Amino acid sequence: MTRPYVVTNVAIIDAVRMIPEGYIKVKDKQIVAVGEGNPPSEAGWERLDGRKKILMPGLVNTHGHTPMTLLRGISDDLPLERWLKEKIWPAEAALDDESATVGTALAIVEMIRSGTTCFADMYHLNRENAALLGEESGMKASLARGMIACGTKQEQREKLKTAIDYAKSCQTSASGRLRGAVFPHAPYTCPLDFLQDAKAKADGASLPLHIHIAETRKEVDEHEAKHGMPPVAHLLESGILTEGSLAVHAVHINDSEMTGLKQNGVHVSHNPQSNLKLGSGIAPLPELLHHRIPVSLGTDSAASNNTLDLFDEMRQAAMVHKGVAENANATNARTILEMATVNGANTLGFSNTGLLEEGYDADFILIDSDQAHIVPRINHGTLVYSASGRDVTDVFVEGRPLMRDRKLLTMDEEKIRHDAMETSALLAASR
Amino acid sequence: MTRPYVVTNVAIIDAVRMIPEGYIKVKDKQIVAVGEGNPPSEAGWERLDGRKKILMPGLVNTHGHTPMTLLRGISDDLPLERWLKEKIWPAEAALDDESATVGTALAIVEMIRSGTTCFADMYHLNRENAALLGEESGMKASLARGMIACGTKQEQREKLKTAIDYAKSCQTSASGRLRGAVFPHAPYTCPLDFLQDAKAKADGASLPLHIHIAETRKEVDEHEAKHGMPPVAHLLESGILTEGSLAVHAVHINDSEMTGLKQNGVHVSHNPQSNLKLGSGIAPLPELLHHRIPVSLGTDSAASNNTLDLFDEMRQAAMVHKGVAENANATNARTILEMATVNGANTLGFSNTGLLEEGYDADFILIDSDQAHIVPRINHGTLVYSASGRDVTDVFVEGRPLMRDRKLLTMDEEKIRHDAMETSALLAASR
Repeated sequence: MTRPYVVTNVAIIDAVRMIPEGYIKVKDKQIVAVGEGNPPSEAGWERLDGRKKILMPGLVNTHGHTPMTLLRGISDDLPLERWLKEKIWPAEAALDDESATVGTALAIVEMIRSGTTCFADMYHLNRENAALLGEESGMKASLARGMIACGTKQEQREKLKTAIDYAKSCQTSASGRLRGAVFPHAPYTCPLDFLQDAKAKADGASLPLHIHIAETRKEVDEHEAKHGMPPVAHLLESGILTEGSLAVHAVHINDSEMTGLKQNGVHVSHNPQSNLKLGSGIAPLPELLHHRIPVSLGTDSAASNNTLDLFDEMRQAAMVHKGVAENANATNARTILEMATVNGANTLGFSNTGLLEEGYDADFILIDSDQAHIVPRINHGTLVYSASGRDVTDVFVEGRPLMRDRKLLTMDEEKIRHDAMETSALLAASR
Repeated sequence: MTRPYVVTNVAIIDAVRMIPEGYIKVKDKQIVAVGEGNPPSEAGWERLDGRKKILMPGLVNTHGHTPMTLLRGISDDLPLERWLKEKIWPAEAALDDESATVGTALAIVEMIRSGTTCFADMYHLNRENAALLGEESGMKASLARGMIACGTKQEQREKLKTAIDYAKSCQTSASGRLRGAVFPHAPYTCPLDFLQDAKAKADGASLPLHIHIAETRKEVDEHEAKHGMPPVAHLLESGILTEGSLAVHAVHINDSEMTGLKQNGVHVSHNPQSNLKLGSGIAPLPELLHHRIPVSLGTDSAASNNTLDLFDEMRQAAMVHKGVAENANATNARTILEMATVNGANTLGFSNTGLLEEGYDADFILIDSDQAHIVPRINHGTLVYSASGRDVTDVFVEGRPLMRDRKLLTMDEEKIRHDAMETSALLAASR
């Protein structure tokens, strides 16, 4: 795709528009035109037939831990604390940079296949390899080296320095498709002074701070008992959550904390499936939206989901809150699509990403709409209530194809699946 | 597949077992052996290679309205009452037997593609055609002519007689793969005397009674205001819900009603996605299971879901209750699989269906497990938390293949999709 091209005869849907049959023109990594009908042929322009397809923005996953695809299905139906202590942490102890990289590669394959073009990834291993895979895969990514504040103060300072250096290196990647973030794990694994230090260093390097927060009721209750206020309020008051920070989960938060998040320009990553599966609870999405907090969607890891398919996540985010509120209009398809595309891109620091507009990056995907579970009509609801990651046929980032006709172009999928099976068997045998 | 055959080298999972690599033997419509490892070749037996596949029982959908696939996506994000009165009923008024049949065909295609081998179908149109399509498709089905008690008493009696005659004709279908049921729509559309008459006639013909009940809080509140008790308690006390009856939805029910359902042998069809999407609420599944009530899964219609994919329904049934209860063990994958297979078959009156055991009907499906969203391990959770209807490659009912390598063998899929698009456009133009 070195020539400019136009995708024709295609249904076009993003968070602000729906064109039943139209086209988009792509040149120099960007969308240069979007319109209805069928444009005349132009010399030097390649034409891609989008008949019986839907063209939509690539999806953006604002929270995950890519190496944990290796732990998919290792433990279902256990609550967060037991899941972590009895299953996940022992299994993770057997991971090293090399095996974690196999998991990251598997995650990237799964994400491209299911139409994700931009993802956040936090982990404590394999960060250089993750950055390399991010570059080679052709995706956009926001990468972070996760930190738990254990060890001596000196060790903690070194851990923080390594994490900041890593995030800075991502910000200046050759392709410009990587971003860096500073990600202390959570208030219950990082004391306030460590968080304050991390925040000061992040600010100094113009890096955003991401943190898991208010995921379970237990976390919130214990934080309140210790600090006299819930964690979100506490981190707002302490100046740790500020403009552009990302609060991941935010399941158990009250109205005044929501007001604080909005006033301080904090973003939220909503991960409904992980929160449900671990029994953590149900975040107040309608209330977060009512407060006009910028909310995006994350899958969390494949160990608590168990897929990285953002279509499943959109569907769940649209569904569950209607039932809880007993209000079918508590969410709507257009807003959910906005969360999964342009909101996510903004949150991860990618401008001009997530809409199908002139001047936006050509990050888009094609969906096969000629299927029994999708016909007879196409609209915003099709993408949220009927489609699945398995319906994605083509994926483009900055105009470059990463998948055509369901074939991956930047990743050796068969080898990666094989390596994942083998690595997983070796890890199981070593425990 | 006229010769007996053995599926080899396949992972075998049903609600009671998991064989990492084994085989099943099929002869004369039934499973005649299930085992581990690789059986020796036998003269006269065909061998099907199940490598990199999971073999599981076909899924059973205990509630739906097949013609309404034509209304998929016609109205999202509206509550049940407005959804029905403003959107669905006006659209349905334009349907006739012929167009409804197009919808039924589309539903059957979608169900086979997503691994469903047995389904319940209630509607007021196209019943003879639905029975014909049930037979031709090769699926198992429980069919009913839905009844709303409007018109004169004489008209109501005639409607009931037609419905009973229809259900009886299904019970005696040539293939033996159809069942009939008597389905008065709901307590709020059928007065008690009509329900009592329907129940007496159903009993007289040894037919089960199915009914939508306690779907919304409004329905329950209004029933209580009128009759002094909630609808489930009322219909139990009136002898309308008895052994083998099917209560569909049962979202808003109390503990003593659950005791009554159990004591009276009443089954429940749990339709979590439809209940969420319409804002009806969240049925107390963990409590229903705690009472040992036989619960199965239904998709309801594609107009309130918006697919007929029982994998999505399993995933939602497993997920949502964990979040509501804040208990990751509120449901578990094995129990959910039981609901979607053997429980459903029992509820719809199919014996020896829904498990992979010697003497059971050979109703089974194959899943492609060599995919990035499924590796690196296979267990019960794989089917509930990772797999999708789009992963189904092969479908067999009574040993007969309905789909091989994703190609439908009993339905003309392309024509059906085309007819659905055309019929839907005509209906829209006529309104």
